[in-house]
Amino acid sequence: MSTPAVKSDTATARRVTIFGPGLIGGSIALALRSRSPGTKISAWARNEEALHELSSRGLADSVSTDPAAAVEAADLVVLCTPVGSMEGLARSMTPGLSATAVITDAGSVKACVVDQLTPILGENYVGAHPMAGSERAGLGAAREDLFMGASCLVTPSLKSAQSALGKVRGFWQDLGCAVTIMSPVEHDRLVARLSHLPHALAYALINLVIDTLPEGSQQLAGGSFRDATRVAASNPELWTGILTSNGPEVAAALREMSKLLKAMATAIGDENPDSLLDFLKRARHHRNELSLPASERAA
Amino acid sequence: MSTPAVKSDTATARRVTIFGPGLIGGSIALALRSRSPGTKISAWARNEEALHELSSRGLADSVSTDPAAAVEAADLVVLCTPVGSMEGLARSMTPGLSATAVITDAGSVKACVVDQLTPILGENYVGAHPMAGSERAGLGAAREDLFMGASCLVTPSLKSAQSALGKVRGFWQDLGCAVTIMSPVEHDRLVARLSHLPHALAYALINLVIDTLPEGSQQLAGGSFRDATRVAASNPELWTGILTSNGPEVAAALREMSKLLKAMATAIGDENPDSLLDFLKRARHHRNELSLPASERAA
Repeated sequence: MSTPAVKSDTATARRVTIFGPGLIGGSIALALRSRSPGTKISAWARNEEALHELSSRGLADSVSTDPAAAVEAADLVVLCTPVGSMEGLARSMTPGLSATAVITDAGSVKACVVDQLTPILGENYVGAHPMAGSERAGLGAAREDLFMGASCLVTPSLKSAQSALGKVRGFWQDLGCAVTIMSPVEHDRLVARLSHLPHALAYALINLVIDTLPEGSQQLAGGSFRDATRVAASNPELWTGILTSNGPEVAAALREMSKLLKAMATAIGDENPDSLLDFLKRARHHRNELSLPASERAA
Repeated sequence: MSTPAVKSDTATARRVTIFGPGLIGGSIALALRSRSPGTKISAWARNEEALHELSSRGLADSVSTDPAAAVEAADLVVLCTPVGSMEGLARSMTPGLSATAVITDAGSVKACVVDQLTPILGENYVGAHPMAGSERAGLGAAREDLFMGASCLVTPSLKSAQSALGKVRGFWQDLGCAVTIMSPVEHDRLVARLSHLPHALAYALINLVIDTLPEGSQQLAGGSFRDATRVAASNPELWTGILTSNGPEVAAALREMSKLLKAMATAIGDENPDSLLDFLKRARHHRNELSLPASERAA
């Protein structure tokens, strides 16, 4: 992880094209309307209905189901579709793309996306992952403030131009994100543990409880179980895609966690309260650090 | 789990003695003041300061550091101290206890507590576990509405009198809890999975991230990680006690979870998206059921 001296181009793009007006794409449109009223918004979706909904809410100035038409005159293009669709869309949009248009995306895995898009989009492409979301999906769940204070990991390829990196960084910052720059591989290792693992734990925990307790028991759950399983309500198709796209890192993180839980079971069974107490104290210390504003954290 | 036909005695006790005016004990005092203004409150704590704070906030009519004095004239006694201290307190209070006083507790493990207290307190003792709490502790975190809508698991022993069960059930219901009656052993198996496991996962997840990622990475975490680790800020001494008191069940739950995570890692590595998708769909279905009000759930 590093923060190279990239000039941040905070002058907002004059025309932004959003691919996929769902939770993320819709929230980008809402945030642009609020924070950058001069920006023209184009939008692409696979089906007309989604585009109609966006237009009727005043969130797009032009819409198209044709990728090349949607990116015409765009200064900045942002792909907010599932990661599996991005390569095809990148190929289809190129005929309409200007030579200076910069492209970013909001996919939650990066190495495979950057590997797929860089040969097509070259130095003008800089991947990103805004770490904002919700277990809800779709335009109906979009929020103007979704990105306020959220981390956005920006992952240039070895080919990305410094000017494109500056523009992409400025775009996400203008939406309210705190940007950190890292390589796509570092990103995938990190989010496997910070995002994909918590999701996998939520899915596993609720299924375990359903499978091992009398029917209806889960309704007796308190806040810790409800919090720990909240994201298990996330879209299963989307998350199957995310977990498998980042497969090796997610599997490694799951195996590390599996090993750690077995060690905890042994520590509890050994009646070794001191080592367990140390483990819990360390966790509380780290969790409390996480709750502090940046200015109050230990360096 | 069963709900026998117990007459619920909702006539509130005239004098309640609270042992341990922390988060739970303090919230009971606040709720009694608000919902049952005629009830006299006595309180016991190991140190005078805690009692002084309670009195100065108008939350106790009499206080004592002597267990036997604290329970004098009490209709109902509720132990809200750490589970390890309850046996000693039960012994110390008996000289002051009236023959008709009913005793309950708020400990989060039940088999060991019920086994310890029943020989001392006999048919008048009925254990309970209000599943309400917070990662914060102490009287400062107490809330009048802590029990509103919370589950309370009431765990009579084989010796508990039906009349005592009715009174204890009524007491927790009057505080706003939804009461379910089950055996202490059923309780421990259930909470190992619904409460202790989510806590153990939170502790494990944050330590894993700290140990395997570059320093400062956890600050990049989004909502899923923050939610999944929230309860890792809970009191380490208290939770070491809880996890070890319910050791065999917690260790079993951790081993089940460990096995399930390994199976997920294999499913992801096998590139078997169908089995993973089914797993995630099932989890979402169950999590959505959990969010529904009782009236809208599948029977």
